[in-house]
Amino acid sequence: MKLDFSVAVHSLLYLDEHRPNKISSRELAQSLHLNPVMIRNILSILHKQGYLVGTVGKNGGYQLEQSLAAMNLGDLYDLTIPPTLSYARFITGPSQTETSADQSAIAANISETLTDLFTVADREYRAYYHQFTMADLKRDIQHHGYFLQREADLDS
Amino acid sequence: MKLDFSVAVHSLLYLDEHRPNKISSRELAQSLHLNPVMIRNILSILHKQGYLVGTVGKNGGYQLEQSLAAMNLGDLYDLTIPPTLSYARFITGPSQTETSADQSAIAANISETLTDLFTVADREYRAYYHQFTMADLKRDIQHHGYFLQREADLDS
Repeated sequence: MKLDFSVAVHSLLYLDEHRPNKISSRELAQSLHLNPVMIRNILSILHKQGYLVGTVGKNGGYQLEQSLAAMNLGDLYDLTIPPTLSYARFITGPSQTETSADQSAIAANISETLTDLFTVADREYRAYYHQFTMADLKRDIQHHGYFLQREADLDS
Repeated sequence: MKLDFSVAVHSLLYLDEHRPNKISSRELAQSLHLNPVMIRNILSILHKQGYLVGTVGKNGGYQLEQSLAAMNLGDLYDLTIPPTLSYARFITGPSQTETSADQSAIAANISETLTDLFTVADREYRAYYHQFTMADLKRDIQHHGYFLQREADLDS
């Protein structure tokens, strides 16, 4: 769910803004207007991956371990929104009970072709995020237009 | 929904395979193992856009109007999976009732920044599909590996 990515990014920006203070998950939950349990789940993932130092739990608190420029946006996307493991439910195809003799060449092969297409498209999508760091995101928050301008520059 | 794209693509391949026959939506539904109503909805969209000629309805039938090479895969993707109009439900942010004075600079600005980021990423994602036609897809169905090979060629 894309929201997990937004929560991770927002939390990291908040912790960066409040360096070197130790921030509780309760304070973060209030600031992001979110359920503390959801915040704690995502902080726990970021903590495991070394983005944060601190202690988990009700009286715990977190600080950033790295600079924003050292945090790749694509890494955070992959961490919070893992790639789809199977595209089966998005693809037409023969039923499981049908024998291959009953199938046309298209029906028998479309699943593999569309899986390849969706998989490569998703890898390219993720490559877009991997071009940026959290410092780029902070730049856009301070002065909107960084991502749009960059797209316009590449098109021209 | 990604399934709509798969259904459109599969239908076009089936009609191409059976040129110059007129194919009923019932026959297509049987071949794709899908509900005839869903098939008819998607055929109606393809018909409106000029991909098909024929008559809608129970006793209707369809034929392809264009060659597969003239059908852009990105156009079909945009037609069957329109871009997300609002990313609001994927983005953290202040509640509607909170006045701007209560917000931090991050909370006040993160929605616009993440909307730009997601929007540009989605445009790049769609640009990937726009590189191909239905003839490329047919090529991969006949000999799997076209999309994967192309990605490998670009990376090397």
